Formats: sequence, structure tokens, C-alpha cells
Amino acid sequence: MAMVDATEVDHLAAERAAAQFDVEEMKVAWAGSRHAVEIADRMARLVASDPVFRKDTRTMLSRKDLFKDTLRKAAHAWKRIVELRLTEEEANLLRLYVDQPGYVDLHWGMFVPAIKGQGTEEQQQKWLPLAYKFQIIGCYAQTELGHGSNVQGLETTAMFDPKTDEFVIHSPTLTSSKWWPGGLGKASTHAVVYARLITEGKDYGIHGFIVQLRSLEDHSPLPGVTLGDIGGKFGSGAYNSMDNGVLRFDHVRIPRDQMLMRLSQVTREGKYVHSNVPKQLLYGTMVFVRQSIVADASKALSRAVCIAVRYSAIRKQFGAQVGGPETQVLNYKTQQSRLFPLLASAYAFRFVGDWLKWLYTDVTQKLEAKDFSTLQEVHACTAGLKAVTTSATSDAIEECRKLCGGHGYLNSSGLPELFTVYVPACTYEGDNVVLLLQVAKILMKTVSQLTSGKPPVGTMAYMGNAQHLMQCRCAVSTGFFERSPDVVEAAVAHIQLLLLLMCTYGVRFIEKLQQDIPGHGVKEQLQNLCNVYALYLLHKHLGDFLVTGCITPKQGALASEQLGKLYAQVRPNAVALVDAFNYTDHYLGSALGRYDGNVYPALYEEAWKDPLNETVVPEGYHEYLRPLLKQQLKLSRL
Amino acid sequence: MAMVDATEVDHLAAERAAAQFDVEEMKVAWAGSRHAVEIADRMARLVASDPVFRKDTRTMLSRKDLFKDTLRKAAHAWKRIVELRLTEEEANLLRLYVDQPGYVDLHWGMFVPAIKGQGTEEQQQKWLPLAYKFQIIGCYAQTELGHGSNVQGLETTAMFDPKTDEFVIHSPTLTSSKWWPGGLGKASTHAVVYARLITEGKDYGIHGFIVQLRSLEDHSPLPGVTLGDIGGKFGSGAYNSMDNGVLRFDHVRIPRDQMLMRLSQVTREGKYVHSNVPKQLLYGTMVFVRQSIVADASKALSRAVCIAVRYSAIRKQFGAQVGGPETQVLNYKTQQSRLFPLLASAYAFRFVGDWLKWLYTDVTQKLEAKDFSTLQEVHACTAGLKAVTTSATSDAIEECRKLCGGHGYLNSSGLPELFTVYVPACTYEGDNVVLLLQVAKILMKTVSQLTSGKPPVGTMAYMGNAQHLMQCRCAVSTGFFERSPDVVEAAVAHIQLLLLLMCTYGVRFIEKLQQDIPGHGVKEQLQNLCNVYALYLLHKHLGDFLVTGCITPKQGALASEQLGKLYAQVRPNAVALVDAFNYTDHYLGSALGRYDGNVYPALYEEAWKDPLNETVVPEGYHEYLRPLLKQQLKLSRL
Repeated sequence: MAMVDATEVDHLAAERAAAQFDVEEMKVAWAGSRHAVEIADRMARLVASDPVFRKDTRTMLSRKDLFKDTLRKAAHAWKRIVELRLTEEEANLLRLYVDQPGYVDLHWGMFVPAIKGQGTEEQQQKWLPLAYKFQIIGCYAQTELGHGSNVQGLETTAMFDPKTDEFVIHSPTLTSSKWWPGGLGKASTHAVVYARLITEGKDYGIHGFIVQLRSLEDHSPLPGVTLGDIGGKFGSGAYNSMDNGVLRFDHVRIPRDQMLMRLSQVTREGKYVHSNVPKQLLYGTMVFVRQSIVADASKALSRAVCIAVRYSAIRKQFGAQVGGPETQVLNYKTQQSRLFPLLASAYAFRFVGDWLKWLYTDVTQKLEAKDFSTLQEVHACTAGLKAVTTSATSDAIEECRKLCGGHGYLNSSGLPELFTVYVPACTYEGDNVVLLLQVAKILMKTVSQLTSGKPPVGTMAYMGNAQHLMQCRCAVSTGFFERSPDVVEAAVAHIQLLLLLMCTYGVRFIEKLQQDIPGHGVKEQLQNLCNVYALYLLHKHLGDFLVTGCITPKQGALASEQLGKLYAQVRPNAVALVDAFNYTDHYLGSALGRYDGNVYPALYEEAWKDPLNETVVPEGYHEYLRPLLKQQLKLSRL
Repeated sequence: MAMVDATEVDHLAAERAAAQFDVEEMKVAWAGSRHAVEIADRMARLVASDPVFRKDTRTMLSRKDLFKDTLRKAAHAWKRIVELRLTEEEANLLRLYVDQPGYVDLHWGMFVPAIKGQGTEEQQQKWLPLAYKFQIIGCYAQTELGHGSNVQGLETTAMFDPKTDEFVIHSPTLTSSKWWPGGLGKASTHAVVYARLITEGKDYGIHGFIVQLRSLEDHSPLPGVTLGDIGGKFGSGAYNSMDNGVLRFDHVRIPRDQMLMRLSQVTREGKYVHSNVPKQLLYGTMVFVRQSIVADASKALSRAVCIAVRYSAIRKQFGAQVGGPETQVLNYKTQQSRLFPLLASAYAFRFVGDWLKWLYTDVTQKLEAKDFSTLQEVHACTAGLKAVTTSATSDAIEECRKLCGGHGYLNSSGLPELFTVYVPACTYEGDNVVLLLQVAKILMKTVSQLTSGKPPVGTMAYMGNAQHLMQCRCAVSTGFFERSPDVVEAAVAHIQLLLLLMCTYGVRFIEKLQQDIPGHGVKEQLQNLCNVYALYLLHKHLGDFLVTGCITPKQGALASEQLGKLYAQVRPNAVALVDAFNYTDHYLGSALGRYDGNVYPALYEEAWKDPLNETVVPEGYHEYLRPLLKQQLKLSRL
């Protein structure tokens, strides 16, 4: 059944030849530097060539086999990282290309940073070496069955017992069960557990505690600890490789020094005392996590766009006349008008990610110098960009799937798994609507302070110039929560303006760094995509622009017209623009998105791998089909 | 672990007590009649009480077990239908509540109607009794690997051989493989196969042929027939219960009389002749299929809305003050502004479905009287409504999932499966974008004929009154396909107008039939939902209304304000409005959507069913976790 030809014909060669820019230089612009291209390329190939990292049958595995496969891949990745003495940068890329969520993500991404950010020097010296060598596996146990976004409402308790110098960790209700933490269900030996600190009869609110969950000898849960997986999640494969867990405590005792004590402490006598470390330092971690989520958005979106663009260049449908040659789907204006804005968005999010990384460095330095002046504005930026880019990306992946027609619905297209593994980003690390409400609150506050002579800073500076914005105050007066649907729309608009600025800024940014963007045509292509992105947003939110009188109906129509012209300019470059992402066929994991465009033999070959095809006559024929066909159902017991 | 309390406390009792209308009468309005409520109720309970129809672990089954489970349920359903001598109406409802896609859907929904619509009297007499008794199982093999929407581009050939009086069915290329037909992969014994009819050296285009695929003795594929399943699809459970298949023919011979000959025939000598049956009769089937898709949209949407509304009434988050009691999520304006328009849409689609059913009856009668005058307009209605309602429904199910926060991502919420099983409706039976382009074409044609004195009919009559529409002609002149993104938007607008009219019409319709809508407050609630739906569309498409000068910015703002007031009126009735759908907990299949609102114990209980929880220490611990934790990875072979 091996019908994929070995002759390596490039079915997209004509598309590639038509590109009006230097793809190799665009790869540099996309990756950020020549070094970044080289290292990503090397790690991607390392993963793609290793049979342990195969993922072509991942969506067909049972939950147990999928989880076992994840444990295997994680161990193998760690083995390779150690053997090859990979740098941290290389190791992160290797894990990225393994492309399978697992406990290590939480160990490195949440457990270690929590100890670094909230642990004292002493605690860091004790716990970090254990974590760095994987002598312990940690996770981040915050969310509960009954409480997600409202962290202050968590119910788990940590009661200090001065008699034994211990905290007693307890789950007083069913809804206080820890629920969702990744890596918790089956893999972790330890967790940072968030609980209400109670000492001397007083509730001091939510604090973090390092709690051992499982025996380091045989991995069995410790006494008083109930552990399990919370069950299957959206999609096949996808996030089901992760053991999101449930955890209940029945009066579990931990030493006092396992409370994370960088910001506040409980003394031997049970006194609650604050340290001199300012609370605001914790925001740094949040900004870091959210900026990496924005970077991930551009990765996920660019993968989906890459698949949809390549397949749209291969797929043909209808033609000028019945029976005549058919037209590439990529030539249809309806296809272009849905697909090219997503291509532009992938590039836009990529550059915004770079800017956010810079913002993180900047705010970290300021926080260390105890300068908290930009904190609120940075919070609005990262929270808003997290919300807008993750929502746009999940919608866009699903749109790309639809743009691939029926075949996009097959797991072998790679798109169903890409969507289902990505979409929780809209909910975790701050639900998008809750985040936008926070952004809106900061916006309203900024607007209301305009008259008080306090000029807005950073990305909100533009408001200082817009005197008519002060009219907004009357709207605000009707009550913030009554108007919340409207202010959420305002927050989205603000963030999209930011995205636009940063998109332009991104192009300028590279230019500034390198005098001029090198490579034939690269700058022109980026400028084109930037314009597509801007006009697409204008078209999408036309109503808001018109209702505020920012533009006239005639200008709106003109923008749509211009958009059509821009699509025509993107068209010959579309395939090369997705080639510039430099993704291996392994990483894409899509029969439709293959580099060589040899789509149909690949789809055909993938089909036969399904376990249902192990036999020609299906299991169940003798029990359930034959009696039906032979009119003998009455005799059979079903 | 059985933590769902048996005391049957109704956690939503207060919500139900607050409703301002008679729920039992609303059930009648929703179902269409008292008889419809009774019969649906009886069938739903029949299914829910039968252990064979359990589906609570469906998303955990391997593909093979899921398929076997589907064969079992299909056979059991048929057994019950025969034993209980169910009417066709009852049998259809029973299959609906079994709620698992399978070969029987295609057998009854496509194979039988194809023979009825395209077979001669003689052919019907031969084949239908076999199909009615399940002595054969049939499917509908049209789509190919390389051809979907463009039916005229299909490549499979049916060459007439006058020597043997047979057709030779053949797949000349890889892309000509039949690909997607449901029930084809494993279950069907026969198919209606669409192929290019070639006789006397001439290609007469696409025709249907009844082809036996498998032996009726042992179910093995007949000589020259290659059969298989096309592999896993989006989601767990969901559409993976269906054996969408691949089929290749290697010169398979069938008797001449297995060409479906109602419209045209091939004589013994190989002459191609038309019958006197007009081709337009085939449209009746298409209208029928599409009207049932619109009816399904309201079912799927109402299930999702029912889950999201009930859980939003249970779930609490944040409160007026930190540490104080938390607020029901359903009270938040942002939640209402996202959820209530979807509730209104479910009702709107329900009434439009009724109207389309009437339209089908009407057009069938006209076609039989050879009156083809309304055909084009009916086509535009059904194609457009199919496109708009299926797109809106898939988006809405996913929105409902997000409105349930993190828990919506769990399979036990029921929403992931509901989404993935529903979303192919956007692609099958006419890709939505292709359909909207067809509607747009008819709209443009209608507009261009306005000056010629040919008045538009039926649902397009409103155009006759709009003189300024004639200005559109200049836009049309720039080339239809160049403007296709714009005209698609125009088509969507037209269909939404239709939906609005029909929504109002639906309310009026019941009123007309029954003098007055009976039941305390029922009419008021329906009128409210109708207004929500209208203003929501206005708000969503504000830009289009403003750019055409239909409304002023001030009116737009007023509409948004009014919408907020309407939400406040819907709020106390929301739970009762979804209760009126009368869905059993079995049919909903959601821990979040339970009638009694006892959500958290149910989520907790579902989690432990996951196969990963069979052992506390996971499989793979000794191979992949222990060596890692014990720093012995180098010694182990992974």
C-alpha cells in the first residue's frame, strides 16, 4: 500500500519558483537571527530523525498507551539532552519539536519558576538541584474543582500546628479538590500547592507550599493523599498525553519550612510576618508566562496556515468551464480573503512576541530597581495580548481546517489535533474574558485620569492626544459591570491597535537593528503582510470605526478594495511565505501540509494505519451484522 | 467513589421557581404539538433506560471497540423497533436519541432515498424491500479523494460493454478513489456509486449505479473491490463511530439494469436515451436533505445551550467583595451577552426548520405538477439556510464550551463530542462557502432583473420594493468572482434577514394555528427571544448597516442598550427556557448539563472511569519514570 512515491517530485516547485523574495533571508527574519535558524533547524532534524519521537499514529492510541508513549518520549528526550550536553536553548527547542504535552512542561515551566520566584535563597538551594536533575518531578497545584480564575476563593487549607512545627494541608470540601494541574495525576512526586494559610486562628489568604505527593521509592501516593487523572479531554491525541490531575488531602502534614517564604513567613511560634521583598516582584513571573503564550500563538497559527496554504495550492476545484482543467483553490478570492489575513496574523503575532520578550526584560530590570511605575501598563499589555492572540489563534486554526474542505476533518490532516491541543490556551493562565475585563478596567481608569493631568504612559500614550475620549466618562458612570460587554469590546480594540503598532514596529525593529532588512524582497513582503493585517482588522471591525465616526463609509469601501489588491500581491508569494517558517514534515504532522505537496498518496497511505483496517471484515460482524442481514436478530442476544 | 448523592436534591429549583411562564406549554411550542412532546418523551426514556445504549464511556473506547459498539447499538435498535412495532416516526426518534452516528444513517438517509428518487418503478420494487428489511446494507458513494463539491469532476468510470450487457466500473486514478462515504468502510454490502457513464465512446457525465461491494455470505469484498476505512476523525467518540470509507474498483462488472434509470437509460444496444421524467424532480431530494440539516442545527445548538445555561446557573465566581459569597456566572453581563443570543438562535432555528419543512412539501407538490417557477428561490433558501445555520451552530457549540470555562474542555462536559460530531455539517451536503456563492449568484441575478420588470418572488419579494438596490448593478459589472468575498457577505445578510422573518413568522405561525399561543407567558418569552435574536444580528453586523446608511450610529447605540434590557428579561427565565427542550440527562451526556445541577460530584465521579485510573502507579513507571528519578537513564534502553 506504499503509494507515496520515492522519486521526491516537488509538486509545489512552480509555486516556489514564482516567489518574489529570498526565502532563506525570510527564514532569518522569522527566526530572529541566523543563529536561531541554525539551531532550530538542527533540533527539528534531530527529533524528526529519531524513531522514538514518531507521532503519526498518536491519535490512534488508547489513553493508557498515549500516556506511556509520553513518559517514554520525555525520558528519551532527557537522555538525549544529557548525552549531547545540549544548552538550555537547545533543550527547549528539542522539547518544542517533540510536540507532545507532558509533565516536563509543568516541571520546567511552572514548578521550577514558582520555587525560583517565591522560595527563599535557602529553599532554592535545597529544592532546585533536585528538580534540575529530575530527582523529583514537580507540578503546580493551584486550580480547584470549584475555583479557577478567582484564586482568592481557593478552599484548600494549610493550618499551622505550633505543637509539631508543621502545616496541616487539608481539602475540606469536594469543590476544594485540586483539579486540572498538569503532571499531577500520574507523574509528579511533588507539587507547589496553593492553600489558605491559617495560623493563630486567622486566615491569611493564599500561599504556596511544597508538598511531597508520592513515595520516591515506589511512586505510591503518600498517606492522606488521593491522586488521579481527571479524564479524557477534547480531541484525539492532543492534550490527552497530559495527566491533568485531581488531588485531595486528608490532613497531610508538612514541615514548616516547606511554605514558600520569600514574601512572607510563619515563625516557629506561629506568627505571620512579611519579608521586605515587595509583592510586585511576583508579577515578573506572570509577565514571563504570558509572553511565552503569545510566542506560542504565532507558532500554532503559523503551523495551521502552512498546512492550509500548501494544500490550497495543490487542491483544485471547478474551472472556467465544465470538464475543463480545474483551478487551484488558492486562486479563489473567497479562499484568499479568509486565508491571507491569517497568514498576516501569524507574522504579526511573531513580531509582537519579540516585543513582549523585550518588555519582560525591561520590566524585570525596573522591578529589581523597585520601579513599579510601568507595572500596570505592562500588565494590561500582556494580559490583553494573551487574550487577543490566543482567541484569534484558536479561531484561525479551526478556520484553516475548514479551508482544507472535508479532508481537514481527518486526523491525518494534523489540524484537528493542532486545534484541540491549542484551544485551552484561551482558558488557562487567565480566562480571556476575565483578562479583557482587567484591561478594560485599566483603560477606563486611564481615561478618567486624563483630565487630572496624569499623562498616560507607554502603549497608552496615544490616549493623551485624543481629547474626545474624555466624553467616555459619561458612559463609565452607568456602572462598569453593567457595561461590561461593551468595555470588553473596547479592550479588544485597544489590544488590536497595539498589535498593529507592534506589527509595523516589528518590521521597523528588524530594520533598525540591521540598518536594512537584508534579502531580496523580504522587506516588501513584510510590509505587504502588515498592510493586509491592518486593513483586515479595519474590515472586520468596520462597525466600530463607523459608529465612532473615525472613518466614512466611503473610506471603508476603499479599504475593502485595497485589501483585494493586496491579496493579489500575496498570492504568488504565499507558499514561499509559509516555507519561511522552516517546519519539518515531522513537526507539521500533516498529510495535507507536506513540503512536497504529494498530498493524495499520503492521505491514502495514512488511512490504512487505522486499527479498524487490521481486518477486512470488522470485529462484530458475526454478532451484530450477520444476524441483521440474515433476519436472525430475534435469536441473538445483543 | 460514588459521590453523586442519591437524595435527588434539585440544585436548580430556585431557578425553576423564578420562571415567568408555563414550561410544560413551552415544551409543546418547541416540539410542535402535544403529540410530538409525548412521543419524543417516550422514545427518549426508552433509550435512556436501556443499558445497551449507554454512552458515558464512549469517548474512552478505542476505534475498534467504538465501531463494534456502534454495530451493537444499531442491531439492538433495529431489534427494538421490530419487537415494539414502532412507527417510522417513532423509529426515527429512537435513532436520534441513540445519538451515535453509524451506517444506518446513510442506509435510511441516502441509499434508500437515492433509489426512491432515481430508480425506476421496477428498480424500486426490486431493491427497496431488500433495503427495508436490512437484507442488504447500502451507502451513497459519491465523493472521491480528489473531488467533493465539483460533482461534475468525478473520475470513476462506468463503461458500457454491449458484448456482455454490463457496465464496467473502474477507478482510473488514485484521486478517483471513493473517499468519505459513511457506512462504506466496513458495514455496507451495497452502494449507489456515482460514475461517468461512457457508452458508444461518449462520456455522458455523472450517473448513479447500484453496485454490490461485499459477499452476502461472509461479508468479504467482491473481486476487484478494495475497501477500507479512511481513518480517525476530529474528536474522541464523535464521528469515529462511523466507518467513512475508501473504495477502489478494478474493472468491476455489474448488470446493465443496475444503472439508476428513472431519468435516463442505456439500451441493450448501448444507446443513451432520456426518459420523460424532468431532471428538476431530483431537486426535491436535495431540498429534503437540507431542510433536515437545518432541523438538526437547532437540535445540536439547543443541547449545547442547555448545558451552558444550566452550568452557568450553578457555577459561581468572584463576588461583590473578596472572601464574600460568590456570584452565579449567569448573572454576569458578559456571560449573558455571549450566551443569550445563542439561546435565542436555538429557538429561531427551530421555527425556521418548521417553515423549511413546509417549503419542502410545497415545492414537492409543485414539482409533481411540473411547476418549476419557485425552484430557484427554494434552492437559494435551503442552500443559504443550510450554510448559515450550520456555521452559526458549530461556532455556537464551541462558544458554549468556552462559556463553561476549563471544565468545558473535559469530555465529561459532553461539549467536545457535541462540537466534533456536529462540525462536518458545515462541509457535507454542500460546502457552506460554495453554497453561499450560489445564493449570491441568484441574488445578483434577481437584482439585475429588477429593471426588466420581472418581479422577484417569495422570500426575495422584498427586493422589489428596494429601488436603490438597482445601484448594485455597477458593482456586479466588475466581475462576479473578483467580488466573491463581498457577495458572500451579501448572501449571508439575505439569509439572516430570512431567518429573522421566519423567527417572527414562527411565532406568528403558532399563533395563527391555535388562535393564541396557549400557556402562561409562553408568547411573551418567544417574542423576547425573537427580539434578542434580531438586535443581536444588528449588533454583530453593525458595520454593514452603517455603511449602507440603513441606520444611524445613534440608532446602533440604542439597539445595544435595548439588548442589555432584553437580557435582563431573559435572565430569570433562562433555565426554564432550556428545560423546555425536554432533553434527558442521557441524551445531553454532560456532567455540567445535568437536570438537577449536581455538577461537581458528577465531574468527580466521571474522572475515575478513565482507563488511566485503573492503576494508581501508571504503566510505564518502571521503564520511564523510575530510571529518570533514580538517575539511571543511561543504563536503560528506551
